[in-house]
Amino acid sequence: MTKRKIINDPVYDGFLSVDDPVILQVIDHPWFQRQRRIKQLGLTYLVYPGAMHTRFSHMLGALNLMKRALEVLKQKGVEITDEECRGAKLAILLHDIGHGPFSHTSERVLVDVPHEEITLLMMQRINEEMRGALDIAIAIFSNTYHKHFLHQLVSSQLDMDRLDYLGRDSFFTGVSEGIVGTDRIISMLNVHDDELVVDEKGIYSVEKFIISRRLMYWQVYMHKTVIAADQVLLNILRRARDLNISTFNFPLSTFDLDRFAELDDDDIMVAIKHWQHSDDEILSSLCRNLVNRRLPAIRFGSTPFEGVECDYFHGTGELHNRSYDFNDREIKVRYKDGRCLPISEASDQLDRHFLEKQVTKYYHYYPKKV
Amino acid sequence: MTKRKIINDPVYDGFLSVDDPVILQVIDHPWFQRQRRIKQLGLTYLVYPGAMHTRFSHMLGALNLMKRALEVLKQKGVEITDEECRGAKLAILLHDIGHGPFSHTSERVLVDVPHEEITLLMMQRINEEMRGALDIAIAIFSNTYHKHFLHQLVSSQLDMDRLDYLGRDSFFTGVSEGIVGTDRIISMLNVHDDELVVDEKGIYSVEKFIISRRLMYWQVYMHKTVIAADQVLLNILRRARDLNISTFNFPLSTFDLDRFAELDDDDIMVAIKHWQHSDDEILSSLCRNLVNRRLPAIRFGSTPFEGVECDYFHGTGELHNRSYDFNDREIKVRYKDGRCLPISEASDQLDRHFLEKQVTKYYHYYPKKV
Amino acid sequence: MTKRKIINDPVYDGFLSVDDPVILQVIDHPWFQRQRRIKQLGLTYLVYPGAMHTRFSHMLGALNLMKRALEVLKQKGVEITDEECRGAKLAILLHDIGHGPFSHTSERVLVDVPHEEITLLMMQRINEEMRGALDIAIAIFSNTYHKHFLHQLVSSQLDMDRLDYLGRDSFFTGVSEGIVGTDRIISMLNVHDDELVVDEKGIYSVEKFIISRRLMYWQVYMHKTVIAADQVLLNILRRARDLNISTFNFPLSTFDLDRFAELDDDDIMVAIKHWQHSDDEILSSLCRNLVNRRLPAIRFGSTPFEGVECDYFHGTGELHNRSYDFNDREIKVRYKDGRCLPISEASDQLDRHFLEKQVTKYYHYYPKKV
Amino acid sequence: MTKRKIINDPVYDGFLSVDDPVILQVIDHPWFQRQRRIKQLGLTYLVYPGAMHTRFSHMLGALNLMKRALEVLKQKGVEITDEECRGAKLAILLHDIGHGPFSHTSERVLVDVPHEEITLLMMQRINEEMRGALDIAIAIFSNTYHKHFLHQLVSSQLDMDRLDYLGRDSFFTGVSEGIVGTDRIISMLNVHDDELVVDEKGIYSVEKFIISRRLMYWQVYMHKTVIAADQVLLNILRRARDLNISTFNFPLSTFDLDRFAELDDDDIMVAIKHWQHSDDEILSSLCRNLVNRRLPAIRFGSTPFEGVECDYFHGTGELHNRSYDFNDREIKVRYKDGRCLPISEASDQLDRHFLEKQVTKYYHYYPKKV
Repeated sequence: MTKRKIINDPVYDGFLSVDDPVILQVIDHPWFQRQRRIKQLGLTYLVYPGAMHTRFSHMLGALNLMKRALEVLKQKGVEITDEECRGAKLAILLHDIGHGPFSHTSERVLVDVPHEEITLLMMQRINEEMRGALDIAIAIFSNTYHKHFLHQLVSSQLDMDRLDYLGRDSFFTGVSEGIVGTDRIISMLNVHDDELVVDEKGIYSVEKFIISRRLMYWQVYMHKTVIAADQVLLNILRRARDLNISTFNFPLSTFDLDRFAELDDDDIMVAIKHWQHSDDEILSSLCRNLVNRRLPAIRFGSTPFEGVECDYFHGTGELHNRSYDFNDREIKVRYKDGRCLPISEASDQLDRHFLEKQVTKYYHYYPKKV
Repeated sequence: MTKRKIINDPVYDGFLSVDDPVILQVIDHPWFQRQRRIKQLGLTYLVYPGAMHTRFSHMLGALNLMKRALEVLKQKGVEITDEECRGAKLAILLHDIGHGPFSHTSERVLVDVPHEEITLLMMQRINEEMRGALDIAIAIFSNTYHKHFLHQLVSSQLDMDRLDYLGRDSFFTGVSEGIVGTDRIISMLNVHDDELVVDEKGIYSVEKFIISRRLMYWQVYMHKTVIAADQVLLNILRRARDLNISTFNFPLSTFDLDRFAELDDDDIMVAIKHWQHSDDEILSSLCRNLVNRRLPAIRFGSTPFEGVECDYFHGTGELHNRSYDFNDREIKVRYKDGRCLPISEASDQLDRHFLEKQVTKYYHYYPKKV
Repeated sequence: MTKRKIINDPVYDGFLSVDDPVILQVIDHPWFQRQRRIKQLGLTYLVYPGAMHTRFSHMLGALNLMKRALEVLKQKGVEITDEECRGAKLAILLHDIGHGPFSHTSERVLVDVPHEEITLLMMQRINEEMRGALDIAIAIFSNTYHKHFLHQLVSSQLDMDRLDYLGRDSFFTGVSEGIVGTDRIISMLNVHDDELVVDEKGIYSVEKFIISRRLMYWQVYMHKTVIAADQVLLNILRRARDLNISTFNFPLSTFDLDRFAELDDDDIMVAIKHWQHSDDEILSSLCRNLVNRRLPAIRFGSTPFEGVECDYFHGTGELHNRSYDFNDREIKVRYKDGRCLPISEASDQLDRHFLEKQVTKYYHYYPKKV
Repeated sequence: MTKRKIINDPVYDGFLSVDDPVILQVIDHPWFQRQRRIKQLGLTYLVYPGAMHTRFSHMLGALNLMKRALEVLKQKGVEITDEECRGAKLAILLHDIGHGPFSHTSERVLVDVPHEEITLLMMQRINEEMRGALDIAIAIFSNTYHKHFLHQLVSSQLDMDRLDYLGRDSFFTGVSEGIVGTDRIISMLNVHDDELVVDEKGIYSVEKFIISRRLMYWQVYMHKTVIAADQVLLNILRRARDLNISTFNFPLSTFDLDRFAELDDDDIMVAIKHWQHSDDEILSSLCRNLVNRRLPAIRFGSTPFEGVECDYFHGTGELHNRSYDFNDREIKVRYKDGRCLPISEASDQLDRHFLEKQVTKYYHYYPKKV
């Protein structure tokens, strides 16, 4: 009797069923289990209390979508071998494994290796342990595999990663702006000349997807208070580094994968709670502020804030959002008559003007008056 | 202009809006913010990965339901003053504040004061800080307030606590068995002779509520694998205590509220990760098992398991579930003609036989063969 | 390129995709399209305004569930040929095709052939038109096919019919009591000794299903006001028959399939609107009452109402509900060790006492005082 | 004891509770009950089988939103008397009462009075029957009431009508593109200088609302197959008129409110079923096509289709969609500092270029080859 694991997932109103022993082995790997202790959205829970969901659940969710996408493509006659299916599933399952705690915030201070590189290092190490079982997965992930559409399912403007996180982040924050007709989009996927495309009937759903992403940007990912909280965390880590203090063995002079793999959100938070009692008043004060959610005020503007003092409590910065990237390969729509057009030409609603538009906002944060 | 806080809550498909300055002050209290770092369902996330939700979100959710319940009762002509409304809201907001990390599991090992007592201690201390603003809330919580139905909204077989956690746990686990028509039940609440009752039309919803609770018991709260994980955690804490090891200042010889209030899930998890490297092989092995989710096998039976060895890796125990408690005050239904009947008589579906039924299960856990 | 039809269905948060040309042909058949004009729940929309959903949508929904169930069974190694898959799908798709307008109410007055018989007649006629394409479907429907579990998927205590209508009726009425973990139940289906069974892990979901059905009975299917409305409709049809009036060619002296197949809800409603202006005061008054929703009062009791006058405006009756039928084959649970037990023995919650319980209610309706 | 009516509504995951006797009387009016027999989206159910919802449910849904909006505004200190509340509720409740069956399609053929005028006539007649109880409601509806923001709640670019129908149509079609954060938008409403505005924090939700409406246009309201079906219906009514045939007393030489008020979807459908047997081959053929859903092919283009034959089976036309109307009053956003800006200036995402964009599509329909 084959082992089968059924994992509940509230997002897709159902569950994920896994019976491939190789995939089950990867899920059981300590480095994968570690992602249970890393929140998908870092400090966002300080604004949206439901947003406690982990990278672990996102990676399984993306696997779920990949399974469905591969089924749809095979039903439409796209040739994909069993080995390639497994490879694509493993690639999406592991695509975020290199993330550390609060990675978007902490990356530059704690670790100077980008998370994409760490992901690859980890995949390679697991591959060694599993005697090459991830060979195809790594090729797909690195885009060296000859069927390029498989890479596009893992990483492109319409990949299973984005599809899952938009829906998931929307579900757990309670911000309905991110609800996307995931099932519908997936059912419209197709392959044309080794490129992932969307069937004509799916054009509205893709429009919805692009717009939802854009709205989620300001509503959630770049929410004022989240930016403010991130700045406090960043300043804590900077101050600790400047003081040469650490309780969790970071920063390291040289990057050590095994030590990195032991680090998660809990370590950071416990250190910060500990530093509340530090002798350094700047550090202790910043830490008390974060632990007790006394966050700085923050204002947004359309031009840079000039002449403001910058220290551990005050600062400025800028944010960009372009929901659609023309430098990346465009999302393509395939018509019944065989033509293929980029969405910027196919869509009546989202023309080039809209899609190219990049919004930049400048911010200035400073202590709230009590 | 009054300060108003809007807090998103995915469970009720909307949000909670708070503008009472006293309630806002309580929410901002460090002891309340601490509940952001304590998961509502402890280790359940090892089975249901979505179950990362915190006591913080539950307490706000229960406040949300209390607001609606009070509005319904006032609309039906029940006399409740503004002060009493605030009191009832504060009582439900704080009803769980004394919970420590993984409290159902860790209570006996780490702290020998029950969480209800700690809750009262904390409420009293906050009350001092706020110069008596919680007087009525404490009276309602302790059931010394003369309008007893207010206490029943906070603690009874049909209180806002249970209504919220059933729906919330169901939402985050993805187990639909717990979905309850919360809005409908609340709209059917009424008061009769100073007792909280349910209007006749709400009888089916109450039946659903009782049954849902029962189903959630075995499906979630007493899920085999969750029980197994709890036993590992318990054995870790026991072993650490027996070895006289601690990194988080517990157990204490005497209970200290302020030190207790600094403790949360993160401290326990970081300690356990640390103990993976302990010299004590029992401790390090147990910790590695929990961190990497290598949980013991567990089997359930209807009679006690006899003659099995018990140590840090093997053990037995028993579980009870009676979804409805006849020793507690019964849920009462009020008919149009003025009569009031306990649900055990009013319900055609759930007779005394069903309601009295107590299910006991015995379990035996032991290391999985590899 | 194969023709593929995608049909949106709000109930399953997605859609149904059909590409089998035989199934597409059946869906396009006028007798199948007719079910777009027959509401699934008759007059229930007078109580639950959302309950306008049609038998058409139910039959497609049941097809959707059948598709998933067959996939699950095949994945578990149950042998089902492509021809049998198509047969089971066609059987469930057509299982209700013989229903006429408001059939549970009108059956005895308008037509004296039970809807099950008409269904079979219609299936046979379509089969002739399609040169035997429904042979297997008819065998499965009539339980003469040698693999009996296929019939059980169409008609048993846990068939795709019930699974769909419970969820669907719940969705459109807005009564959450009927929400069932459909996906979960289906994923737990299995076959043992040619009998449809449920894997051990699905036991809670089956309990939920049985209870949900019971709750939906009184909350929706036998809602007081729905019963009252049904009685008005019944009395209208009786009076029209007694007066020998008809505008829609019914009742017929002998049953004529083709004429029956032209009849739907709209004909009945237009006739009733027309009869508002009848010279017969009883008929016109009853019709005005139904059209303008002036329904009789109704009271329920646990013993028969004796000595009440009965005419076109007053009457009595009785209702039964036993959610689980011991005379029918029991739902069976299959354990990992191979044993199979009926749910009445397998369930801790739902013992024989609960499952056998039959609730009978008596009702008395009479004109409301104005 | 006051009479209270609770009406389930699956859309808002709850229900509407009404206890105002004047509103209850209006709901019980035969002209209001008639809307139970008029579908909100006409023939759209031929594409989206769930879209059977009625104008009745929409009008109650809009009432539900109005109730919440008025509560929000009063809580923010906007002065609204009890009489004005009732007036605004009655105005929204009745805002669509003048719609006839399939009104957007049939209006020009059957009745040459626009539905807005009929609505006013009906409101006036009911007002007479109720001795002036609708005086304020009619003033608000006609925008002659001195507090103009009350009219804007009933009819403007952000009124309760649009908010309800977008969400409702999305719910019943299953097209997630129309899901709007209704609760959030309503909670952000405010009044500034007698004008309905949106608080700054609601800007993203308004963006979502505008975009959702635009997407729903092509996905649902102007879905190709729906347009094709509408053309068949239109041609049936034209042919019947040209032949001077009618079974439902329309068209009339002069408009008669009482006869109009007896007409609903059922009459049209029964007539069409009847005409399937007409001697006129054009009429009978068109009717059989509609009843059995054999719809014409239709193609869309960006330029007019020239030189195509037009008769009862072939034709051309054009469709416009501008989701936002600059000729109408703009939606205004109110900032914390007191400023008020139109959304076209306030929004970073939706600039004037996007909002002004009008999409025109041309279509050509013709019989499908068999």
